[in-house]
Amino acid sequence: MLPFVADLRLVDHHCHGVLRADVDRTGFEELLTEADHVSPLGTSLFDSSIGLAVRRWCPPVLDLEPHASAEDYLYRRRSLGAAEVNRAFLMAAGVGTYLVDGGLSPELLLPHAELAAVTGAESFEVVRLELLAERVVAAGCTAAGFADAVRTALDASDAVGAKSIAAYRVGLALRPERPSEPEVAAAAGRWLARGGRCADEVVSRFLVWEALDRRLPVQFHVGYGDSDADLHRCDPLLLTDLLRATAGLGVPVMLLHNYPFHRNAGYLAQVYPHVFVDLGLATHGVGHQAGRLLAEALEVVPFGKFLFSTDAYGLPELYHLGVLLFRRALSDFLSAAMASGDLVEADAVRIARLIGHENARRAYRLD
Amino acid sequence: MLPFVADLRLVDHHCHGVLRADVDRTGFEELLTEADHVSPLGTSLFDSSIGLAVRRWCPPVLDLEPHASAEDYLYRRRSLGAAEVNRAFLMAAGVGTYLVDGGLSPELLLPHAELAAVTGAESFEVVRLELLAERVVAAGCTAAGFADAVRTALDASDAVGAKSIAAYRVGLALRPERPSEPEVAAAAGRWLARGGRCADEVVSRFLVWEALDRRLPVQFHVGYGDSDADLHRCDPLLLTDLLRATAGLGVPVMLLHNYPFHRNAGYLAQVYPHVFVDLGLATHGVGHQAGRLLAEALEVVPFGKFLFSTDAYGLPELYHLGVLLFRRALSDFLSAAMASGDLVEADAVRIARLIGHENARRAYRLD
Amino acid sequence: MLPFVADLRLVDHHCHGVLRADVDRTGFEELLTEADHVSPLGTSLFDSSIGLAVRRWCPPVLDLEPHASAEDYLYRRRSLGAAEVNRAFLMAAGVGTYLVDGGLSPELLLPHAELAAVTGAESFEVVRLELLAERVVAAGCTAAGFADAVRTALDASDAVGAKSIAAYRVGLALRPERPSEPEVAAAAGRWLARGGRCADEVVSRFLVWEALDRRLPVQFHVGYGDSDADLHRCDPLLLTDLLRATAGLGVPVMLLHNYPFHRNAGYLAQVYPHVFVDLGLATHGVGHQAGRLLAEALEVVPFGKFLFSTDAYGLPELYHLGVLLFRRALSDFLSAAMASGDLVEADAVRIARLIGHENARRAYRLD
Repeated sequence: MLPFVADLRLVDHHCHGVLRADVDRTGFEELLTEADHVSPLGTSLFDSSIGLAVRRWCPPVLDLEPHASAEDYLYRRRSLGAAEVNRAFLMAAGVGTYLVDGGLSPELLLPHAELAAVTGAESFEVVRLELLAERVVAAGCTAAGFADAVRTALDASDAVGAKSIAAYRVGLALRPERPSEPEVAAAAGRWLARGGRCADEVVSRFLVWEALDRRLPVQFHVGYGDSDADLHRCDPLLLTDLLRATAGLGVPVMLLHNYPFHRNAGYLAQVYPHVFVDLGLATHGVGHQAGRLLAEALEVVPFGKFLFSTDAYGLPELYHLGVLLFRRALSDFLSAAMASGDLVEADAVRIARLIGHENARRAYRLD
Repeated sequence: MLPFVADLRLVDHHCHGVLRADVDRTGFEELLTEADHVSPLGTSLFDSSIGLAVRRWCPPVLDLEPHASAEDYLYRRRSLGAAEVNRAFLMAAGVGTYLVDGGLSPELLLPHAELAAVTGAESFEVVRLELLAERVVAAGCTAAGFADAVRTALDASDAVGAKSIAAYRVGLALRPERPSEPEVAAAAGRWLARGGRCADEVVSRFLVWEALDRRLPVQFHVGYGDSDADLHRCDPLLLTDLLRATAGLGVPVMLLHNYPFHRNAGYLAQVYPHVFVDLGLATHGVGHQAGRLLAEALEVVPFGKFLFSTDAYGLPELYHLGVLLFRRALSDFLSAAMASGDLVEADAVRIARLIGHENARRAYRLD
Repeated sequence: MLPFVADLRLVDHHCHGVLRADVDRTGFEELLTEADHVSPLGTSLFDSSIGLAVRRWCPPVLDLEPHASAEDYLYRRRSLGAAEVNRAFLMAAGVGTYLVDGGLSPELLLPHAELAAVTGAESFEVVRLELLAERVVAAGCTAAGFADAVRTALDASDAVGAKSIAAYRVGLALRPERPSEPEVAAAAGRWLARGGRCADEVVSRFLVWEALDRRLPVQFHVGYGDSDADLHRCDPLLLTDLLRATAGLGVPVMLLHNYPFHRNAGYLAQVYPHVFVDLGLATHGVGHQAGRLLAEALEVVPFGKFLFSTDAYGLPELYHLGVLLFRRALSDFLSAAMASGDLVEADAVRIARLIGHENARRAYRLD
């Protein structure tokens, strides 16, 4: 691996926390991929790209041989306990700065400050917009008071960015216009009458505009995720109208994950001034094939618009793999270009720094 | 090639028969790709990836040199006659078990038992649902009697699976619900009044649910095919709602071909417990580039959910190429991962067996 | 590089002119990618695949070292002046025949005859249909007289092909039918009342049919372009119905660029007899990664249906890079297939000639 990539400081601009508690084999497999459960029609989810990657890279962190069996690995993991396993993998990952979306099952995960404390890293919060709205509703508000209650909650947040899961709730074909106050009140009224979680296009759109108003970069879940998503509604191109409408604000919009639409995302990052993209989740999800995927993702995106993230959730192994497979993929990409004479080292170093941390620090104004 | 891939027993879970009769050059080229005819605006269809693959790999099976000209090859082929050509290529392919959809131009092709008899292989039938429905209608039925006549026909079948070509007839955006009896009768009534082939969303959906009720794995044509398909209606993601609705039945759904949506298909196989995928047709269709395609197709699919198929139709060469290019692609995939230390041989052997035959035997309950 | 690819005569079947005047750094970067402007949120657009390609390959043409800094390169460029820079890069590109769409900002660019005169090349005009219609309207016509005025203008043209930018104006989901005279008059009436540019589905469709009537091959902008495009309306599969309706005319339809839908385009070229595809714009847009992209684009397209183009616009560097990166990608594709025994040299030479110039000369009837 290129030494300047092996040593590269990393800002992980999108991740979640690690589990506080131990998991058994079933629990481990359920967190390994986006499948809800291991299917009796298939075989173990260790039979997958990410499963092979776990078995190659993770046992040595716990003092086992590479390619240990799943049984041996999980036995060792259990015998060490969650706290030690978390510490070992987070140390191995060596992320310098975390931007944490702590809004998915927060009761099970370490919050961002505790996550960062494990390794003495820096951390920041990213506020999950739909959860914020759901908490506003849970705290009790009228339809007419919903908008201002959201604004108050956002103003009280010390997050450095906001996260929208509109992709999961209503799809990415958001209308471009900022919704009017009466539209938001009407949407809130429908939601209050219906109950349940935040799943209204007007509300999702309102939340995005409010975050942008506060100059909070907005992250969108894009592309693949769990079975709750309709992937055909998660193509980033569906955001085109909204991106065009918000370009003039000068506030970054981050397209997360993007697989298998990563080329579409790269195009958007090229033509819209405020759009950034990453390849989180997919980088470790495809295991040893991450190199080809990163190369595709870097075809047309300006290097000043690509961010590193792991999208790790629950298992600390995913931080380690997200980092390791990213470093390896980036190193392979740069090495190949240097070997063919298409890139000189000084430029390779600069590109690595942009992607590794400089773009994130600039876009989120972390300094 | 890795010896355990060269020797791998194969279940071809989706193929058609071979032609009984000889073909001339025009007929050969028309069966080579998905084009209906050779275009006067282009050149010979031997000028294609599959054409190059035929010329490289097929002449030696007929005792010619590799890369023989199309003329020499076709002359030799004709002089041997269809029966000998079929025998030679089916022996070279060496498929152990065929699952045959014999419903496309059955009058021209060897049926599954005759196909299998050529090489002493095992074979099973896959019933083509739209053809079954068309035969029910052709045999004479009322709108009200259509549903039960279909059920009777399905109950009488000894097929191990069912095939839906909804993609060709109505597109894959099927509604998720099981249609009610009155809805089916109304749809049958419309069809009987209109005449022609089976091309109604309600009927296609009814057929799928009935097959699943009988625990018959249902194969869907997905992705590319001939000019009769609207490829933008053949994206497997359009099946999402139906897949979600049928996941609980525990009966496999097989997404066939999938190119160029093979990454989308892999995602579905990861998140829905009953979804399996293959890369038939494309494997030989892209010729010497099959390796990259298979690698893409294996990015996120669990290895317990990927099946081998040729989708060979008409020309016995397509069996040979479908098998050979698949073995080569799989061997390259596994070899590369072993060479980089990402995979050990014992796991490679297991993955090859899963994909080569174990997944198919388990999913279709062949034992 | 394979010598027969290095020497290959090229017909660039889709390009624009080069700028008459010098550009400053801002102007240069704005022409480098599809971004309208350099974003203050990102970094220089030299931080991109195309930026790296410029810095590797272009400085030597101007007697600088490869990988010169952007500053040094642009200083040198400015000191030589536009005429000399244009001459140097057009000579380096060595295109034998240009087919030029001169309809985008014609006041800034060299028209096709002047472009060709720089290097003594052959050139032909491609008429931009929407611009032709806008000129008809600007010259004054009634709604009822619009259709005939367009016909007169087309008849007066000596173009060898026509170009449709329906993708930009109304998207590619054009209806298949030839619009009736009353429909065209009504559409023209709406346009005359509304004013502005040509952006009506009926008018776009009318223009396409009229061009095909005159046996002018019709080029469609497909896939990525600037921020004015809605990329999800630029998938070539949206043209399926129109392609099916026009197949019988026997007049070529050229799908341009196609990235990131190049696999979809290749499928269309396989199954519809009159469809041809290229990879212009993307070939230089992805810089040193053009090899993988070309390989993907050649998966299922018949080699008799693939065309070379640069889609170069404004900067003469883009001609040089479009040619050089294409030659390198094609050479790598053919070399790899020869090295693995999948292709023999005589076939490789023939495929190169088809793609380099023979397909274009045949399709546009240039001889």
